[in-house]
Amino acid sequence: MSKPNITVIGGGTGTAVVLSGLKRSDVNLTAIVTVADSGGSTGRLRDQFGFLPVGDLRQSLAALARENDQSWIRELLLYRFATGDGLVGHNLGNLILTALQDMCKASTPLALEIAGKIFRLDGTILPITTKNVDLVIEYEDGTFIIGEDNLNPEHLGGKKVKKIRLSPAAEIYDKAAQKIIDADMIVVGPGDLYASILPNFAVSGIKQAIKKSKAKIVYIVNLMTRYTQTHGYTAKDHVEEIKKYMGRYPDYVLINDSKIPSSVKKNYEEEKGYPVINDLLPDSYYKVVCGSFVKIAKAKPNKADALKRSLLVHDEEKLTKILLDLLYK
Amino acid sequence: MSKPNITVIGGGTGTAVVLSGLKRSDVNLTAIVTVADSGGSTGRLRDQFGFLPVGDLRQSLAALARENDQSWIRELLLYRFATGDGLVGHNLGNLILTALQDMCKASTPLALEIAGKIFRLDGTILPITTKNVDLVIEYEDGTFIIGEDNLNPEHLGGKKVKKIRLSPAAEIYDKAAQKIIDADMIVVGPGDLYASILPNFAVSGIKQAIKKSKAKIVYIVNLMTRYTQTHGYTAKDHVEEIKKYMGRYPDYVLINDSKIPSSVKKNYEEEKGYPVINDLLPDSYYKVVCGSFVKIAKAKPNKADALKRSLLVHDEEKLTKILLDLLYK
Repeated sequence: MSKPNITVIGGGTGTAVVLSGLKRSDVNLTAIVTVADSGGSTGRLRDQFGFLPVGDLRQSLAALARENDQSWIRELLLYRFATGDGLVGHNLGNLILTALQDMCKASTPLALEIAGKIFRLDGTILPITTKNVDLVIEYEDGTFIIGEDNLNPEHLGGKKVKKIRLSPAAEIYDKAAQKIIDADMIVVGPGDLYASILPNFAVSGIKQAIKKSKAKIVYIVNLMTRYTQTHGYTAKDHVEEIKKYMGRYPDYVLINDSKIPSSVKKNYEEEKGYPVINDLLPDSYYKVVCGSFVKIAKAKPNKADALKRSLLVHDEEKLTKILLDLLYK
Repeated sequence: MSKPNITVIGGGTGTAVVLSGLKRSDVNLTAIVTVADSGGSTGRLRDQFGFLPVGDLRQSLAALARENDQSWIRELLLYRFATGDGLVGHNLGNLILTALQDMCKASTPLALEIAGKIFRLDGTILPITTKNVDLVIEYEDGTFIIGEDNLNPEHLGGKKVKKIRLSPAAEIYDKAAQKIIDADMIVVGPGDLYASILPNFAVSGIKQAIKKSKAKIVYIVNLMTRYTQTHGYTAKDHVEEIKKYMGRYPDYVLINDSKIPSSVKKNYEEEKGYPVINDLLPDSYYKVVCGSFVKIAKAKPNKADALKRSLLVHDEEKLTKILLDLLYK
């Protein structure tokens, strides 16, 4: 029997956790990644080189890089310069992907293929589109922003998102569509709903690919709300948004039900982030899978903050276990 | 029988040619590389980070990286940014080695060991010293310069070098000394005599290591003189300088005797470079091995020059063949 195909759709750190866990399993793993990021190092490189943005691609690259006794490749790809004229703030992985894009005459799929050979990926990374696009977010109060990096809490915190689009409109990359069609399981999320997850579903052609696919679709609900994106969202609100952009409900919705320590909650409250309330009705259009899928990690919650604080993240091993259980169910 | 140990001492493109050829042979290959370079991308990184200079190390890294059907790793490591604020002029390989040094708390040997694992080197790279040193060149007319990047033709062209030193004085790195002692063959050159080759022999402890070694020592004479370093030098002048710094004559001196096309010569003449005259006496203190070890390559002779011109370089396959012949002789 050939290996099952698992296709993960997303971008950002949540997707990296899912990929890091699944890459150790005996599956054909594909990461389909948004290319609408525009902040920081990625934004600078995008402006200066004109290639597709590399930030989310780099996170998936680091997640899929083979680890032996040490995770040196991962560390190298995620290394961030803290010194050096013009280098400060750049991730080395971003610079590597930029160089590869340049070597490949701006072909991002080819650059990713070569990166895959050099860094021995346990999986394949595909951009959701090969078009250079910006994220457009329209809020219910009529505010528009263009560019994922403009999602700042001062102006947008608490506003409700009405719709996201890509500018200009873009088609799905054909190889990404094929990986959706051929998948046995599709994993969506966790991750920033409007910055990392849904931009993938804003390309044309993805609903058709989802429709053609026989895959079991699993959506992993975020642990916390985000003030600029999902303030006040319950689990059901998340799932309804996914349904709206994906064109159908997922087959399974994974949601954490373990208690979150109040010290950890406090760290999120400083940025107006709160636990996502589980208001999902059991066995409605989708199967709700509750469990403890989390762990406490030390991380920098934002760029300006040098202190490492306790954050709640999905646990790659626990997620992998439940995903494989659902796959072989 | 265990594999023979070949230790190459140098830095720069000449050493890279020797390494590229030998890495395909069934030998334990070590590159001992100068860390006194200070120009361009390397100089900027050195100034801003304070780690050992990475330019010569990067060339050896690219030369030893495993090549399958394509030489992507080599190309990636040698990639040079032509765009990007603060990135222009940086070699990606330099940035990678800088990041690794930072990850390894400034330990260059450890950074090279990890680079060796990530990029699958067919050999080992060791710095000649772990001390951060500058090259000091004293000319016969009393001029001193500090820093390899200050070797500019306007002020120094045609002057005769009296002596080179390192500032501050530095000891040989103990693992490099051991690789010299354990070598079956030591290959010195080709390469810029005072910028890439002899700085290795300016560390204390190297003469003792050479003395303890039973290796056959091969010196490969440069093809052309260089106006800022070896203007007017014959082959014998080169060999005598090697002897002065190494403490003994090599066992074999390899020298090219094929005719150099006048169109190629003309390209060098523009920068006051001329073919090295062979005035070596057959079978004096060392065995003179003549042959055709060269090929014509298209390369940029200097940074300001965008035109690719025909240059004469050592041929890696021909050099490998003769080196292995001498090894097993």
